[in-house]
Parts: sequence; C-alpha cells; structure tokens
Amino acid sequence: MIRNDVLCSGAIIPQPDLVNIYGCEIGEGTKVAAFVEIGTGVVIGRNCKIEAFAFIPYGVTIEDDVFIGPHVCFTNDKYPPSGKITRTHVKRGAAIGAGAVIVCGVTIGERAKIGAGAVLLRNVADDEVVVGYAAQGLAESRWK
Amino acid sequence: MIRNDVLCSGAIIPQPDLVNIYGCEIGEGTKVAAFVEIGTGVVIGRNCKIEAFAFIPYGVTIEDDVFIGPHVCFTNDKYPPSGKITRTHVKRGAAIGAGAVIVCGVTIGERAKIGAGAVLLRNVADDEVVVGYAAQGLAESRWK
Amino acid sequence: MIRNDVLCSGAIIPQPDLVNIYGCEIGEGTKVAAFVEIGTGVVIGRNCKIEAFAFIPYGVTIEDDVFIGPHVCFTNDKYPPSGKITRTHVKRGAAIGAGAVIVCGVTIGERAKIGAGAVLLRNVADDEVVVGYAAQGLAESRWK
Repeated sequence: MIRNDVLCSGAIIPQPDLVNIYGCEIGEGTKVAAFVEIGTGVVIGRNCKIEAFAFIPYGVTIEDDVFIGPHVCFTNDKYPPSGKITRTHVKRGAAIGAGAVIVCGVTIGERAKIGAGAVLLRNVADDEVVVGYAAQGLAESRWK
Repeated sequence: MIRNDVLCSGAIIPQPDLVNIYGCEIGEGTKVAAFVEIGTGVVIGRNCKIEAFAFIPYGVTIEDDVFIGPHVCFTNDKYPPSGKITRTHVKRGAAIGAGAVIVCGVTIGERAKIGAGAVLLRNVADDEVVVGYAAQGLAESRWK
Repeated sequence: MIRNDVLCSGAIIPQPDLVNIYGCEIGEGTKVAAFVEIGTGVVIGRNCKIEAFAFIPYGVTIEDDVFIGPHVCFTNDKYPPSGKITRTHVKRGAAIGAGAVIVCGVTIGERAKIGAGAVLLRNVADDEVVVGYAAQGLAESRWK
C-alpha cells in the first residue's frame, strides 16, 4: 500500500498493492518496483529507479537519477536495536548494485557505482567504484 | 496473510496483508514488519523486532529480545534441496544485522552481534561479534 | 498477482496474492513461494523450487530440477542502469543457496552448487561448487 501521507505525484508505482510506502517523498519520473519498502522521512529525487525488494528506511536521502538495484538494503541504526538513527545520503547519478547492503552513516558520491553484493561501511567519492568484499573488508576493522 | 494456526497474541504486526506467517508462535511485544515470512514450527520469543524482508523458515527458534535486521535470511537445509531440516537457535538479546545470511545448524549466543551482510556458518558465543567475511571465510572451508 | 500472460499450468503457486509474476513460463511441478518476482521472458523448467524473496528478471533461463534458495537475486544489466540486457542460464539440477547474488552473463552448470551468500560473476562448470567470497573475489578483478 501507499499511505496517504506520501508525496509521489509523477512517480511510477505500477503495483501499489505490493509495496509498503509511507511518510516519504518520491520525485517525478521515479519508478518503484514491487516489494519495495520506503519509510517515513525518506526523500527520493527525480528519475530514479528503485528495483524490487529494495528497503529504504527513515534516514536515507536519495538524489536524482539514482539506480537502486534489486534487494538493496539500507539501514539506519549502526548498532541495532539502539534506536539511534544515523543518516545516509546518495548523491545524484549513483548506482547501487543488486543485493548490496549499505550500512548507515555514509555518503555515496555522484555517479559512484557500488557493485552487486557489496557491504558498504564507508563514504564513497564521486565517480568511485566499490565492489565485493573490498567494501566489506573495511567493515571488518570498523565493527570489531 | 497471517494464517489461523499462528499463535501471536500480543505480537505487533501492522501490515497483516503484506506478511506470510503460518504455523508458528510469536511472543508478546514482538514487532513484525512488512514483507516477512515466518514458517511452520518457528518459535519467536517476546519483545523481538523482526525487520522487513526477513525470512524465518521451519527449524529456527528465536528467544526473547532478539533483533532480526531487514533482509536477514535464515535457512534450514544445509545441502538444498536435500529436504533434511537442520535447526538454528538464536539466544536472547542477540542482534543480526541487515542482509546477513544464517546458514542452518548454528547457535547464536546471548547478546551476540552478527554484522550486516555477514554469511554465518558457525556457532557464535555469548557476547561475540561476528562481521563481514570473517564469518564467510569459515564458510569456504566448510562447503568445499 | 500472477498476470494472465503467464504460462504456468501445473506449477504450484500457493500464494498468488503475494507474488509478482508476469510474461513468463513456469514448468509443471515447479513450486514458487511467496514474495517472488519473475519477469517477462523468463523460462523456468519443471520440478524446480523457487524459494521466498527470489528475484528472477527478464534474461534468465532456468532448466528443470533447479533449486533457487530464499533471497536469491538474479540481475540482467551488468552496468545498471545501462538498460542493456545480458542473459543468464542455469542448467538442470543446479542449486543456488540462500541470499546469493548472480550477476548476469553467466552460465551455471548442471548440478552445480552455489553457496549461500555467494556473489557470482563467472561461469560455473557442471558439478562445480562455488562458495562465499571465492566467487566474490573474482568479482573484484572484473568490476574494477
């Protein structure tokens, strides 16, 4: 369902019965596939593509022309279930590959590419490409 | 849907149309998000938080106060599709980060933390923290 | 929902309201769980098992007797959002473990096993077993 408190005029959401979208803002021309959850306070820009099974909770901001692959999972609590929300920002033109997990607190630069299956725990510069466990390796030092 | 054979009095399941829950028991105060599947024979304790897109099949037991992050995927068949069910046990107060894959047959100790994106193939002690491909590395030796 | 343009006579889809299946062909005896998306042009053989949260987009062909684990994510665009579709082929009797991400353009051989949580970016031979970041390591060299 798309709750009444969603601002999504001009967004393309072909399967409203199979999404869970509430309290957020989705820009014109952005396509949202089935099985997507977008939570309160999220802002998504224009002409993005949000693929199936993406999870975008409170605390995430996505600029224009961003690709969010299928099964991409954002988070908003670094040490769950602390309840302390940490923000994440995805800049215009970035692309996040299928199944990537984006641990909160990072900024992903303009036109950056996050490879499929990456586990991301650091900032990504404009035009940078981050893949596989290269991203995840950084996670290790940070979580231990 | 929540099938009639579910014991979940006092559980909080705000989107009953967007879950698939059958044949299981969910304790009081436990919150279950949208797009969650919980199967037959699963027992989940009290005051847990089960985030969106979690998959919890037959064979999994979860004690009280556990956090199951978004996109966490449990399994119950070590060599699918063998059909042989192997059990998994998550002890009280554990937290499993977003997108982690929990290969069946393990026990996760009390207050243990499993990092986002981990692939877990071994037991985790009480209070232990397991992250990224540290968990996954063990997988390699075991599966080959 | 299962759109009218799906050929799935003899397939077992117990939760038609919780799937998103359109424009594809699913063989007799194949079981499709809840929260599965199967897109246009996909062909799935007989007696397969497609577990919950599997994402199978345009460009994927799956032969008979294949196991697709929960949360398995196929893709069809190597450099999203290029829009250029690259095909993926899964041969008979293969098994893909939970949470694996299959980057498009590969062939998975007969009876091959892909471990849970793998990120796959190369062809897999008949009877080969590919696990964890062994698969993902190859990804790194290819994406950079």
